[in-house]
Amino acid sequence: MSLAPASATAGVDLTGTGIGQGVAIGRVLRMPEPLPEPTDTPSALTPEDEGARAASAQRFVAVDLEARAERAGGAAQEVLEAQAMMAEDPTLVDDLTERLATGKTAERAVFEAFSTFRDQLTELGGYLAERAADLDDVSQRVIAQLGGRAAPGVPEQEEPFILIAHDLAPADTALLDLTRVLGLVTSDGGPTSHTAILARDKAIVAIVGATGATDLADGTLVIVDAASGTVTVSPTEAEVETAEARIRARALRAQAPTGPGRLRDGTPIPLLANLGSADGAAQAVALGAEGVGLFRTEFLFLHSHNAPTILEQAEQYARLLHAFPGKKVVVRALDAGSDKPLAFLNDAEEENPALGLRGLRALRASEDILREQLTALAEADAATDADVWVMAPMVATVEETTYFVELAHKLGLKTAGVMVEIPSAALLADRILQHADFASIGTNDLTQYTLAADRLLGSVAGYQNPWHPAVLRLIAEVGAAGRDLGKPVGVCGEAAADPLLAVVLVGLGATSLSMSSAALSDVRAELARFSAEEARQLAAVALAADGAASARAAATHLAATFSPTD
Amino acid sequence: MSLAPASATAGVDLTGTGIGQGVAIGRVLRMPEPLPEPTDTPSALTPEDEGARAASAQRFVAVDLEARAERAGGAAQEVLEAQAMMAEDPTLVDDLTERLATGKTAERAVFEAFSTFRDQLTELGGYLAERAADLDDVSQRVIAQLGGRAAPGVPEQEEPFILIAHDLAPADTALLDLTRVLGLVTSDGGPTSHTAILARDKAIVAIVGATGATDLADGTLVIVDAASGTVTVSPTEAEVETAEARIRARALRAQAPTGPGRLRDGTPIPLLANLGSADGAAQAVALGAEGVGLFRTEFLFLHSHNAPTILEQAEQYARLLHAFPGKKVVVRALDAGSDKPLAFLNDAEEENPALGLRGLRALRASEDILREQLTALAEADAATDADVWVMAPMVATVEETTYFVELAHKLGLKTAGVMVEIPSAALLADRILQHADFASIGTNDLTQYTLAADRLLGSVAGYQNPWHPAVLRLIAEVGAAGRDLGKPVGVCGEAAADPLLAVVLVGLGATSLSMSSAALSDVRAELARFSAEEARQLAAVALAADGAASARAAATHLAATFSPTD
Repeated sequence: MSLAPASATAGVDLTGTGIGQGVAIGRVLRMPEPLPEPTDTPSALTPEDEGARAASAQRFVAVDLEARAERAGGAAQEVLEAQAMMAEDPTLVDDLTERLATGKTAERAVFEAFSTFRDQLTELGGYLAERAADLDDVSQRVIAQLGGRAAPGVPEQEEPFILIAHDLAPADTALLDLTRVLGLVTSDGGPTSHTAILARDKAIVAIVGATGATDLADGTLVIVDAASGTVTVSPTEAEVETAEARIRARALRAQAPTGPGRLRDGTPIPLLANLGSADGAAQAVALGAEGVGLFRTEFLFLHSHNAPTILEQAEQYARLLHAFPGKKVVVRALDAGSDKPLAFLNDAEEENPALGLRGLRALRASEDILREQLTALAEADAATDADVWVMAPMVATVEETTYFVELAHKLGLKTAGVMVEIPSAALLADRILQHADFASIGTNDLTQYTLAADRLLGSVAGYQNPWHPAVLRLIAEVGAAGRDLGKPVGVCGEAAADPLLAVVLVGLGATSLSMSSAALSDVRAELARFSAEEARQLAAVALAADGAASARAAATHLAATFSPTD
Repeated sequence: MSLAPASATAGVDLTGTGIGQGVAIGRVLRMPEPLPEPTDTPSALTPEDEGARAASAQRFVAVDLEARAERAGGAAQEVLEAQAMMAEDPTLVDDLTERLATGKTAERAVFEAFSTFRDQLTELGGYLAERAADLDDVSQRVIAQLGGRAAPGVPEQEEPFILIAHDLAPADTALLDLTRVLGLVTSDGGPTSHTAILARDKAIVAIVGATGATDLADGTLVIVDAASGTVTVSPTEAEVETAEARIRARALRAQAPTGPGRLRDGTPIPLLANLGSADGAAQAVALGAEGVGLFRTEFLFLHSHNAPTILEQAEQYARLLHAFPGKKVVVRALDAGSDKPLAFLNDAEEENPALGLRGLRALRASEDILREQLTALAEADAATDADVWVMAPMVATVEETTYFVELAHKLGLKTAGVMVEIPSAALLADRILQHADFASIGTNDLTQYTLAADRLLGSVAGYQNPWHPAVLRLIAEVGAAGRDLGKPVGVCGEAAADPLLAVVLVGLGATSLSMSSAALSDVRAELARFSAEEARQLAAVALAADGAASARAAATHLAATFSPTD
């Protein structure tokens, strides 16, 4: 799939899916490739000598990981501490010793012992299976140490760089020293891959799915332009100057006064933040978020084998709500399943987990968990001044809507709505919004189901584009139903973070937009360029297009006639 | 989940999803439960004696399976012959002997050896993994023989019976002696489970997903009413008489002259057959099929590791086409993936294969296979008098439509269309039908994606109902586009086999209906009861409903006012 050998890439631009609107200039540094599998040739040393080599490498890796854990803090700290323990796990050491006794090299024995351990974890499924990748990382570190080679994972270099990788694992991203990463380019992955989510969350300039990127030689100068999805390789001086000017202009825009989101004609479009824990609240407020449009609650459940208590949950919710006095905070009930299964809620054996018992379906099957969460939320609501809204994930039918809304009201929450992320919910929005207090459109899953293309699967990443007129059409159905019934319709999927698409969403009937805090300033600036009538016209040309690319092109073309781009 | 112990079920009716319209009366016979796992207590015999026991049981099972293979014929014969070989596989015997040497019983050693073999097959993925279930069956047969117990699988009894099971595996159904099975009731599975597909194909009266069915004691008299989805347990004499009258009335209807499908006002609605191979052609013609609305071509590819040659394919296609001189035959290009992966086309590692690289996506990635298939079809077309139409599976976009239609035209096929089974294709039908010569709606997958519920997963089987107004709405979009552009719109999903729903589909704009041959007479009779205007009114009330059950109820109620049910 690569475009050309590294030596021939100078002057050849790469294209992929840009995340956000930023531009970055820098020299590339590639993620090290995984180490080759150690060969199984007999060792020339005694088993005792090989054992001493292995033990010393394991000790080194454990100490190194503990040090990294302390530096990382937060959620990454736990992962790294667990990895440090894995490096010297006693069961693993026993297995290793047995393998060394048969005359294997330390490298091979470490490789085999970790692989066996990994397979066992994978078979157990659920949370433990997710740890298998962490184990691979430890194994690679020990083998690298034995051979005196660079450890895998994020490369370290003093001079800031553009990081190039096939794709980034969550464990890699926890270790990214963001002060040194100017930009991120991956050859694989789509707009909803982990890399893309990280890039949005941390406001890193990024392009994903840029085929050929991993052929770039370390040190090559590139311009990464997320808005156009282009990597310019070995740019001319003029190209560098233009890019630098754009970087300065964007920095100025980010420093512009925040204020509430509104169209040019003054129509208010509240701009809200998507948050995965209370930690991001301060940053969201600083960047002008007018509230929270999507508060994901999975973080409370991911690190335990049982649901947290009502008290534990209420404390966490109150912590978030305190940051938004008098503001709207939309909390999504636990969305377990698919890419984030929970052992106590999900069945690991589903053939197609994205089409399985997830979201509200899983919560209904374990209604105690749902009742406890809603109770905790009502308690936190009563104890704070925020305006709490609650919504159910993965709603497909009118019957599910009434079930959830009635339960939430009964448990003391006054505003209860549904996520629209399944086509049927959009198609029945006129009936669903008769019962729900509001709707919030999740464009990532809605796109996945509407195009029947797994949003985390590279081979069908091309379908995962919320500009597709079929997706826009479903959003328009929800917008029209909201207008007819006087019910708010938000968008909380990543589509809202694409500035021009944000304007189109407003034209389709969205009354608020929620996104990663980092995207707020670009979207705010773009909304201010258009009137409500212009937004409707932009939506109309996008809806009439044949496909995602032509929808975007038509909207871009029409937007230029309304208000020439600066 | 069971309703009550067997002793208390008398007089309690069970409900589930009925397949077709038939009624059956008979005494129940349950599928044997799987044997318990043999305990791992040391044998009192010598390893040699245990080995002799095992070998004799294996021999018995192998001979028995060979005999069954000969009786079964067709595709089932191959499966059974392979199973006979598995029973005495030399590698398996070596493993077994080793286990016996450690003092295990023959039962336990057979269990372990087969399990190990099974796990190896499963890990290999693809076609071989599918054979794992066949291996389990052999293992169960050998263990049953060792204990002198009934072999698992379909029970055998001279007197005809109503078969009760959790669900039926394909291997079970191959062995069903249909002359003895009056009806079929399963506690698990939805309307698109293998059991349901078999029941439709063979016109067996069936109800699937009837919770509690497996609690019925053998010999209990029941009435199975597929039209209402009810199992009446220990019915009264009056109930039995009413049921017998309905069975006679239906038999009369099936013997009515076939003739073409048409509404009461004479509007022609061609009734076509869904076929999985040329074998069913004669039966379809006998039952009055006016052509073939869906010819699945997977059978040509399933039993080989490579695609068949152009010549092999052309011969098979011509065999089918000869049965339909002057009639329409719609052939679907190879639909590999999801529940029917092919090793040479599909990636076994997809997390959600139903949302993966399947259907046309997989064919484009291996375009040679598509070109060869279209070429073979064009050759068969030229050599016969049938009116050949070809269509692509799993089309999501306008771009895919033009790709396929242009390629098919170029390779000599004059009528090329698309399957509409992904929501985006329905939503863009007005643009897709500008390029496609026709559309054919696959309601099974369309329902699966519209409701985001795996159609083969029991825990979400309740969503798999084509009466859902969101699904009807998408069908209406395609119908309207077809009418506006003067392009035919067929329905070839199982929805077309539900007589009242078939009328609704016509009201939504379907111009032909394709179904299992067994369903033709019921649908023909139902269409004749309504005018085109009445069909539109039935469609309108179904579209306006809140959910699938209320849509069906509303249509049923309105239909009764048009034309009282006989």
